[in-house]
Amino acid sequence: MRDILEAVAAGDLSVAAAEAELAGYATDDVGRFDAARETRSGVPEAVYGTGKTTEEICGLVATSLETTGRAIATRLSMADANAVRERLRPEFEGSLSFDERSGVLRAHAPDFERRDLDATVGIVTAGTADGGPAGEAAAIVSEMGATVKRIDDVGVAGIHRLFDNLANMRAVDVLIVAAGREGALPTVIAGLVDVPVIALPIASGYGRGGDGEAALLGMLQSCTMLTTVNVDAGFVAGAQAGLIARRLHAARNESA
Amino acid sequence: MRDILEAVAAGDLSVAAAEAELAGYATDDVGRFDAARETRSGVPEAVYGTGKTTEEICGLVATSLETTGRAIATRLSMADANAVRERLRPEFEGSLSFDERSGVLRAHAPDFERRDLDATVGIVTAGTADGGPAGEAAAIVSEMGATVKRIDDVGVAGIHRLFDNLANMRAVDVLIVAAGREGALPTVIAGLVDVPVIALPIASGYGRGGDGEAALLGMLQSCTMLTTVNVDAGFVAGAQAGLIARRLHAARNESA
Amino acid sequence: MRDILEAVAAGDLSVAAAEAELAGYATDDVGRFDAARETRSGVPEAVYGTGKTTEEICGLVATSLETTGRAIATRLSMADANAVRERLRPEFEGSLSFDERSGVLRAHAPDFERRDLDATVGIVTAGTADGGPAGEAAAIVSEMGATVKRIDDVGVAGIHRLFDNLANMRAVDVLIVAAGREGALPTVIAGLVDVPVIALPIASGYGRGGDGEAALLGMLQSCTMLTTVNVDAGFVAGAQAGLIARRLHAARNESA
Amino acid sequence: MRDILEAVAAGDLSVAAAEAELAGYATDDVGRFDAARETRSGVPEAVYGTGKTTEEICGLVATSLETTGRAIATRLSMADANAVRERLRPEFEGSLSFDERSGVLRAHAPDFERRDLDATVGIVTAGTADGGPAGEAAAIVSEMGATVKRIDDVGVAGIHRLFDNLANMRAVDVLIVAAGREGALPTVIAGLVDVPVIALPIASGYGRGGDGEAALLGMLQSCTMLTTVNVDAGFVAGAQAGLIARRLHAARNESA
Amino acid sequence: MRDILEAVAAGDLSVAAAEAELAGYATDDVGRFDAARETRSGVPEAVYGTGKTTEEICGLVATSLETTGRAIATRLSMADANAVRERLRPEFEGSLSFDERSGVLRAHAPDFERRDLDATVGIVTAGTADGGPAGEAAAIVSEMGATVKRIDDVGVAGIHRLFDNLANMRAVDVLIVAAGREGALPTVIAGLVDVPVIALPIASGYGRGGDGEAALLGMLQSCTMLTTVNVDAGFVAGAQAGLIARRLHAARNESA
Amino acid sequence: MRDILEAVAAGDLSVAAAEAELAGYATDDVGRFDAARETRSGVPEAVYGTGKTTEEICGLVATSLETTGRAIATRLSMADANAVRERLRPEFEGSLSFDERSGVLRAHAPDFERRDLDATVGIVTAGTADGGPAGEAAAIVSEMGATVKRIDDVGVAGIHRLFDNLANMRAVDVLIVAAGREGALPTVIAGLVDVPVIALPIASGYGRGGDGEAALLGMLQSCTMLTTVNVDAGFVAGAQAGLIARRLHAARNESA
Amino acid sequence: MRDILEAVAAGDLSVAAAEAELAGYATDDVGRFDAARETRSGVPEAVYGTGKTTEEICGLVATSLETTGRAIATRLSMADANAVRERLRPEFEGSLSFDERSGVLRAHAPDFERRDLDATVGIVTAGTADGGPAGEAAAIVSEMGATVKRIDDVGVAGIHRLFDNLANMRAVDVLIVAAGREGALPTVIAGLVDVPVIALPIASGYGRGGDGEAALLGMLQSCTMLTTVNVDAGFVAGAQAGLIARRLHAARNESA
Amino acid sequence: MRDILEAVAAGDLSVAAAEAELAGYATDDVGRFDAARETRSGVPEAVYGTGKTTEEICGLVATSLETTGRAIATRLSMADANAVRERLRPEFEGSLSFDERSGVLRAHAPDFERRDLDATVGIVTAGTADGGPAGEAAAIVSEMGATVKRIDDVGVAGIHRLFDNLANMRAVDVLIVAAGREGALPTVIAGLVDVPVIALPIASGYGRGGDGEAALLGMLQSCTMLTTVNVDAGFVAGAQAGLIARRLHAARNESA
Repeated sequence: MRDILEAVAAGDLSVAAAEAELAGYATDDVGRFDAARETRSGVPEAVYGTGKTTEEICGLVATSLETTGRAIATRLSMADANAVRERLRPEFEGSLSFDERSGVLRAHAPDFERRDLDATVGIVTAGTADGGPAGEAAAIVSEMGATVKRIDDVGVAGIHRLFDNLANMRAVDVLIVAAGREGALPTVIAGLVDVPVIALPIASGYGRGGDGEAALLGMLQSCTMLTTVNVDAGFVAGAQAGLIARRLHAARNESA
Repeated sequence: MRDILEAVAAGDLSVAAAEAELAGYATDDVGRFDAARETRSGVPEAVYGTGKTTEEICGLVATSLETTGRAIATRLSMADANAVRERLRPEFEGSLSFDERSGVLRAHAPDFERRDLDATVGIVTAGTADGGPAGEAAAIVSEMGATVKRIDDVGVAGIHRLFDNLANMRAVDVLIVAAGREGALPTVIAGLVDVPVIALPIASGYGRGGDGEAALLGMLQSCTMLTTVNVDAGFVAGAQAGLIARRLHAARNESA
Repeated sequence: MRDILEAVAAGDLSVAAAEAELAGYATDDVGRFDAARETRSGVPEAVYGTGKTTEEICGLVATSLETTGRAIATRLSMADANAVRERLRPEFEGSLSFDERSGVLRAHAPDFERRDLDATVGIVTAGTADGGPAGEAAAIVSEMGATVKRIDDVGVAGIHRLFDNLANMRAVDVLIVAAGREGALPTVIAGLVDVPVIALPIASGYGRGGDGEAALLGMLQSCTMLTTVNVDAGFVAGAQAGLIARRLHAARNESA
Repeated sequence: MRDILEAVAAGDLSVAAAEAELAGYATDDVGRFDAARETRSGVPEAVYGTGKTTEEICGLVATSLETTGRAIATRLSMADANAVRERLRPEFEGSLSFDERSGVLRAHAPDFERRDLDATVGIVTAGTADGGPAGEAAAIVSEMGATVKRIDDVGVAGIHRLFDNLANMRAVDVLIVAAGREGALPTVIAGLVDVPVIALPIASGYGRGGDGEAALLGMLQSCTMLTTVNVDAGFVAGAQAGLIARRLHAARNESA
Repeated sequence: MRDILEAVAAGDLSVAAAEAELAGYATDDVGRFDAARETRSGVPEAVYGTGKTTEEICGLVATSLETTGRAIATRLSMADANAVRERLRPEFEGSLSFDERSGVLRAHAPDFERRDLDATVGIVTAGTADGGPAGEAAAIVSEMGATVKRIDDVGVAGIHRLFDNLANMRAVDVLIVAAGREGALPTVIAGLVDVPVIALPIASGYGRGGDGEAALLGMLQSCTMLTTVNVDAGFVAGAQAGLIARRLHAARNESA
Repeated sequence: MRDILEAVAAGDLSVAAAEAELAGYATDDVGRFDAARETRSGVPEAVYGTGKTTEEICGLVATSLETTGRAIATRLSMADANAVRERLRPEFEGSLSFDERSGVLRAHAPDFERRDLDATVGIVTAGTADGGPAGEAAAIVSEMGATVKRIDDVGVAGIHRLFDNLANMRAVDVLIVAAGREGALPTVIAGLVDVPVIALPIASGYGRGGDGEAALLGMLQSCTMLTTVNVDAGFVAGAQAGLIARRLHAARNESA
Repeated sequence: MRDILEAVAAGDLSVAAAEAELAGYATDDVGRFDAARETRSGVPEAVYGTGKTTEEICGLVATSLETTGRAIATRLSMADANAVRERLRPEFEGSLSFDERSGVLRAHAPDFERRDLDATVGIVTAGTADGGPAGEAAAIVSEMGATVKRIDDVGVAGIHRLFDNLANMRAVDVLIVAAGREGALPTVIAGLVDVPVIALPIASGYGRGGDGEAALLGMLQSCTMLTTVNVDAGFVAGAQAGLIARRLHAARNESA
Repeated sequence: MRDILEAVAAGDLSVAAAEAELAGYATDDVGRFDAARETRSGVPEAVYGTGKTTEEICGLVATSLETTGRAIATRLSMADANAVRERLRPEFEGSLSFDERSGVLRAHAPDFERRDLDATVGIVTAGTADGGPAGEAAAIVSEMGATVKRIDDVGVAGIHRLFDNLANMRAVDVLIVAAGREGALPTVIAGLVDVPVIALPIASGYGRGGDGEAALLGMLQSCTMLTTVNVDAGFVAGAQAGLIARRLHAARNESA
């Protein structure tokens, strides 16, 4: 820290640059929307819909589009999404997409250019119930520029499907493995591949532990090597995978 | 109930027989030891060592031997077992065996004849940590007369060992599958065989859920079909398997 | 595993047969519906309704009927059931039955033949509140071919009814005992009969533990010998009982 | 409250009497020992040994004896009890008794007269593991003057012993029923007798719920009518039973 | 038990009497309604409304009235109560009462005579939130024949109201003290009176422990002497108080 | 932040001053010991003994004394304290004090001057069991310069002692109220005084909630107004009270 | 206590004054509304809306206005607030305000004079989700007479905003810091300022710990010094801050 | 799967190769030690010491050294480590190292060559308490060939140290951030850097949540993007970081 301040004192560093450097962020903060999140932490800011009024969601989506050229909003209802669509400025409207199962809305300014990453993230699910959080993960991975490879309908109850997909799983750079009920799938997969596995527990059961607790505990206790996110936290799993993809992209293009 | 009482009133049923019938038990109760447990519920009475003094254990083992011709005691330390050995009447001493890992002591009277059942129970473990409860299960299955088939060192982290043993697992009448940590093993096995699976969760991890909670929850939430016992409850798993074996034995010998 | 591969290499085993053998399954997989589940694990595949759209349920029921000649769907609302009925092909419609309390729908193709098992499963309940999960259990036991014997309105608060039914309970091959509130019923029964008891905890109380936790813990801690399934998991209890019934049927017909 | 103060103002009530009336206690407070507890709340003060040094225990026992003519101390080790015995004034020593299983020490001044109550408390246990808390309950019931009737070795696993003791259980004024593991015993008994049942959960199992949680939850959820105390809280169960006994004694002697 | 059977064999005891004696119950069982519950356990049977259809509730209320001359139903909605009223036979209708806050419905046959008990139960509450379970308690106490004395709006936040009511609290035979939030009220009261206190925890808070857990734990850990029932279990608290009242009534009338 | 940087750029602010201002701390950091904690956050740094070797504790105490003129260490055993005493430089030795019950060691340099605050903190306990954490609180309050007023042996079981001390409690500036078991004491006190109450839950019970959970939940759910710290966190309660005392001291001396 | 009674006996103290002194409260109790709460404990009584009917809320608001000249009601819906507005006597209507986000309604009699305190409370939030409880806190602080300083949109994910506000945070007398999700904000702030911090955990996450449990635990475990209130308990946090403000006001005006 | 089998049938693939391919593992399995773990899943097999006898540990270490040229053993006591050292064959002894704080033992065969990875893993800790699990993480990262960069003594209580190290943290490829108590550190760091953060919760507190639960929940609920492992699971965090490092190494050397 002292180095930076001395550089400022010496006139070697501008105040703005020092400020950014010190707190680790760029400076284009607009109202309550943290537009600089991507610059600082590598993950684009998203609007988390739960507990916000439709009014607030529309406003934040608009701000996001105008300041960063992109809007990502999660946990939206179809009604929220329609409201956003109606109020969006015409030039953004064409780009808007909404996936009802995952509740993710995305929109881009006409001149927005997503940086494509030279890296692939595999997303494995066992069935319908995993679709929402897996879709959240896929959306953010995709917005961060990595290629998404979905491997669906793979479950431990019918383990042959898993073996049929082993080569696909080994071919990606990082795996997100969603699993509800007892959550055994990431454990089994991590024992068979040498790709980093991020386990994503899903709240899809009933009775004791059916709210994702059994799956989460099973992943934390896994006898194979994996890291975990919270129950249904597809966005977090995708963001972490996206950060790894960014690193790999950089590594692959270092000498270029 | 009225039928029984009317039979007694009519002199068609002896008082003793009525008594046994009504409460569902034979009548040779000796002090605190429930010698008739096997007759009534199909499972031999065992002395549960935890929380008992060495004195009490020795006394109950002796009573058991004298009234039923057999003694089974669980959760004993080596010191307990040695004390029992020293105090046993000479004619029983030769038959005494003690397994330190599972803490199970067994002894039989010279004229005790165990009924052999025409049925086999498979007991699957993943490693050393499962040995104690699996040993408890094996002991009671064996005392109930069924054949025990151990399939050790099978874990989901190295799933090839599991596939190597599929034929063995399919060849038994009922499977007890012990698993600690995330407890995925019974789930995977129950998806591959059509044998009834009793899941036995083991307290072998650390951190959250490491006391068997993760394994237990995973088994209760399993996406395949299995029943569960409490954490480390090898005796219960074995007794239930033994009861199924008894039924199968009877079925196999019905026409004989 | 090596044996199988060598047989393939030697031409002694067809590729398809090896594939089935290796992963332990038959090969008639249709879309997302695991049609081979019964062949592999002994339990017919069922459609779990919770969290699925009516559209998805109708589709899976149709697929199931067409590929296996039978459809079982659980946790359906009356509206779901009606939707299925409306869309079913005429030849299947007559066979469709729906039990509102348990939420189980069943349908069969005209030429479906259920294999009847020479084995009986007793299902014990204490009252109305146990009816849903007990009905789930009865449905799957029945679909697996075993005879179901219901013993209803037996509770520990009026223990005389239990004694009146002891002979009935001893006459079956395996007992499923449902119990809510404190869940004492399976413990009391397992102390009086030598039939294997599968305890089924029900979420029927209020206050602390009323969500089935008290019943589940009581069954896991039972001082008598029994295995347990998750809260309200009637399907799992029934499937396990069905697997035991299959074994008994085979045993009874081995010499035939 | 105003009445009392006006009586004081009018000189109709002495200051000391008013004070006692207002706060509901007699006035012979000695240091940290609440000698007046029995007068105020009907239960004699006891020294709770856990977490106190031997020095502190000895001091409080002496104070209790000197101010109330009686000392009750709970959760003491044999070493604590021996230390108390050594330091006691000679005239008290003869009266000292210590029960190692329950950890209760009692002593009385030569001129102490316990009021005998015309009421009986039944204390039911299933086995050795319940002995400590049941002994605590018996000690305080006895010190409060009621007759204790022990009914031991009654458990739901061998329910015939329970039926053999029904008449005994119906003959007492209030029942304390101790139970560990799944804690079903008080539920079964309360369905068969019309005596008030106080359930006393015991920490005697292993695995999940084995620390008394399963028993406590089962008692709170009981489908029969009973009240509960905390795990191993024999003293509390006994004190409550003693208070009921006091009421009954008064009722029986009202007209006398 | 042998005694009874021998008496039957000898013709000294009728079959019916033996049956009642053995299982501890009278014999007028009607369908699913346990009409003999009051005879056996001292507490009248009540219809627990939660989870039952209106149809079922109406049927059970009618059966109860016809077999015992009385109906008590708990946890009913206003709609349930209205449905019962509409379907009741005219001669019962006039006696029907329903308390919306507690959800308790009561009705009696014209010739029903409640036995009045010479005993009083005090029911203490802190405010509106405690009214439902306290009303349940009051209803069953009253149906069991004891006098109910309500002491409302007493809370630890304004402890002066408590002191104003001390004399009232000391004048009853047994106290039920309802308390939500932190549940301190029964603890404070039990330190000031020598009446047996039954603590009734209420689910009236928010945040952690607001579902009655804080109140329940506080009552189980109370540093004064009291017994506890489950969260919101007013019926259980009232039934236990009623059983104590029955004993006191008998004691007061023993010599009469 | 920009203001500060611009001041540095303009030469109006030294680099060191800016650094302190930016991160909010003074700069005399010595090794791992955060000597500037008091300047920054108002609370002196203390050495937390649990999990540290005697060697590490001695080193940190020495560093603390040398850099700040004072050492406070908590959760030390008598052996730890003796080791510190032996290794301390002679000039510090005389000032060292150790309180075994609370495990707090304190030492000061000969020239250390504690600032006395014109404010008083009341610390209320119910008995022996609260002494450790209350002593921790007293030690840090005292080191922060406020006057400590202890009010011991006040409990809800004997509420008269509480009333005897009301005037004392109202005379202090802030109250720390320690309570174990059900933790009702702070709730009762906060309803009677207008002094800010910090509740300090103590782990002094047994059975469910006896590890401080019942007390903590009760304080969080309190129907009176208070804030809470973690179980046994006397240091935190004392530090917060000390910060309030600092503010009051400043307020009382503002015009001076 | 004796002093007061002796003063009454001597005629030196009126009965009414003694009564107030003894129980620590003024005497203008009106029905169920504790009008004297402010006099006794320093915090104005508020009507807690949850679980009350609109009728009850309206009545209590009216009583409060008439007896204390002020009404505060929390956790009201817009419908509740409108009902209150309609029924209020015309002279109160103009003063009524309702904040929908926090659910707090306030109204004052025309002649109500709030005492202004010479003290400032800072309330820090991270975003929209914290607004409700923070608004509750602000309302009560304001009603108690202290100045509220809101510092919104400060979160650890964008820590630069926090540093921009450090000077503001250091300028207030006491800080309430609301935080949901992982609840790290109060910990970070308390490490940077020497102002007392009251942490207010918010239920704003999803998955495990999202109901405020993660935030609450994090605050209880904070490595910096702070006290905590229950999840979403903004009123409690505000009342405690208000009590500290009262003390500071008194201190600042002591010599005046 | 069919492809592989057809290749075998056609003679295009050897049986051994097919076997490895199918189950995803190499074939040099030795007894109970899974020597092929590194080949299959990228992480070297380690001996987990907890619950194993010294005898077993020594045997597994020897097997590991002989089959893979390397041994890693975790959670060993100093006594275990000494025993291993004594029994090791002389040629291995020189290479043995043991770190007492983390309990990790490592040894290598003279000809063992670790592959160095062109990637760096940062490991951040706050203090002494984090040292054990952080050391476990460092050991496995190092054995997997990546460079370890330790950044110690960084905590949120003294946040300036964190800012001093921001550049260091941004310079590594992946960060493991250990934190006990409230576990806020990884949340704060992940908001400031664009490096993937693996959070490692530590059991270093006391009171509620002090066993790592508060830290774990805080990490799962983090408002910044990170993945988590179980409490104290340093090995898992290190292995995941090592897998990412392997990918980066490969990416950096792809064109080479």
